[in-house]
Amino acid sequence: MKMDFLGRHILIEYYDCDADILKDQKLIEQYMVETAKEMKATVVESVFHHFNPWGVSGAVVISESHLTIHTWPEFGYAAVDLFTCGDTINPWVGFDNLESKLKAKRSESMEVARGMKDKIRRYSNVDGPINFKPE
Amino acid sequence: MKMDFLGRHILIEYYDCDADILKDQKLIEQYMVETAKEMKATVVESVFHHFNPWGVSGAVVISESHLTIHTWPEFGYAAVDLFTCGDTINPWVGFDNLESKLKAKRSESMEVARGMKDKIRRYSNVDGPINFKPE
Repeated sequence: MKMDFLGRHILIEYYDCDADILKDQKLIEQYMVETAKEMKATVVESVFHHFNPWGVSGAVVISESHLTIHTWPEFGYAAVDLFTCGDTINPWVGFDNLESKLKAKRSESMEVARGMKDKIRRYSNVDGPINFKPE
Repeated sequence: MKMDFLGRHILIEYYDCDADILKDQKLIEQYMVETAKEMKATVVESVFHHFNPWGVSGAVVISESHLTIHTWPEFGYAAVDLFTCGDTINPWVGFDNLESKLKAKRSESMEVARGMKDKIRRYSNVDGPINFKPE
């Protein structure tokens, strides 16, 4: 069986990560941008913020959708989303990459199909081909 | 029954939206920031990008996590994520808000609990209270 959709969205929970890494805004931004590139994504722009007393939140907008992260150093926990469109990118490369960079000892993930083409055809009344970017 | 977790993540598919709105980077950014505020979130920073020939991607980082959007005007379709932490924010206010602003004639959503406290306790070996921000 095959399902046809615009994007793949991986929701990840990283547990028991290195707390010092999760506190470090610069490092988290660097790791997220590196991860985008290692997934073969095209980085458009990124925004990261350090919270007082700790924790980092940020997003990397890529031509193929986005990566986001929220960290809780005090719990060794990070919530990450990798949302990618198109067949040239593999979000699981990003999953492995960040698992190793954040030194997560345990990880869980869920994959959700975004923009199912059959639904777009039905609910948005689209005829013709549906592709994530114009050919 | 009750489940205890750090964040609520709503994944939304908006179908049959107004194509002119989905094309308009300024308007999409304005709507997303307004939606964050209407959800009672604290906006930290936002980043939006318009793609050639069309489509807008963007993220609003809030103190309580994030909002993201990716639009396909040619299909009347937008993929939105509303990820919020803490009890003072209701992401469903954002869902209704954007449904109306984007003039979506059909919407689908899925809610995912992020940072389940029992799992953080087990997998990150945390004792004591787990809250989304230090008390």
